[in-house]
Amino acid sequence: MSIEPDFDKGGGLVPVIVQDSETNAVLMLAYMNRDSWIKTLETGKATFWSRSRNQLWLKGETSGHVQIVKDILIDCDNDTVLLKVTQVGGAACHTGYASCFYRKLSGDGFETVGERVFDPKEVYK
Amino acid sequence: MSIEPDFDKGGGLVPVIVQDSETNAVLMLAYMNRDSWIKTLETGKATFWSRSRNQLWLKGETSGHVQIVKDILIDCDNDTVLLKVTQVGGAACHTGYASCFYRKLSGDGFETVGERVFDPKEVYK
Repeated sequence: MSIEPDFDKGGGLVPVIVQDSETNAVLMLAYMNRDSWIKTLETGKATFWSRSRNQLWLKGETSGHVQIVKDILIDCDNDTVLLKVTQVGGAACHTGYASCFYRKLSGDGFETVGERVFDPKEVYK
Repeated sequence: MSIEPDFDKGGGLVPVIVQDSETNAVLMLAYMNRDSWIKTLETGKATFWSRSRNQLWLKGETSGHVQIVKDILIDCDNDTVLLKVTQVGGAACHTGYASCFYRKLSGDGFETVGERVFDPKEVYK
């Protein structure tokens, strides 16, 4: 397959920004290797490479909060992917917030500004 | 400084997503080390670490298209930063497009969907 990001540059992985296709909120950043790229194209569901577990990671596999891919964009250097998705369940973050970026730098600390959509204890049993 | 991303996880660097604070468009992805993080906080202008040139990189230093930082958010894992910025000049990409993500996967290839704001030959002389 010739149409793909440059996986070699980052040792087999490219960073993937996930953006809500309706609200334009940035939901999370994850990584893809070639297998997860192909899986994402085949299934239309965001699939990443988990660097901590060293395995393919279908986002939402446990929680049901999968990400339906609407658009796939690539940057000028071919080394970063932008996925525009519909976030099933309304929350991308395992903490229950809509976005993983739910804390904002404010004075000397980080202030929570995100919206909590679910209780993790209810979702990950 | 205790309030900062976890630079150790990525060998001293964290990925930084840059988003237009008005349009919510994702403009680019770059990397910061601790020096560029501190420089960004001090100056209010997005400053990265150039992995290709191995030096601090004030975004827009050559083109004048600096990024005025409006908000700094951090993700649940403390290993990715989201900068919301005002993009001076209206374009973040060195190719003259508003966003580095100006190509969309379409059928067998990438289709240009972005808007070209300037001619690189005029800006980088």
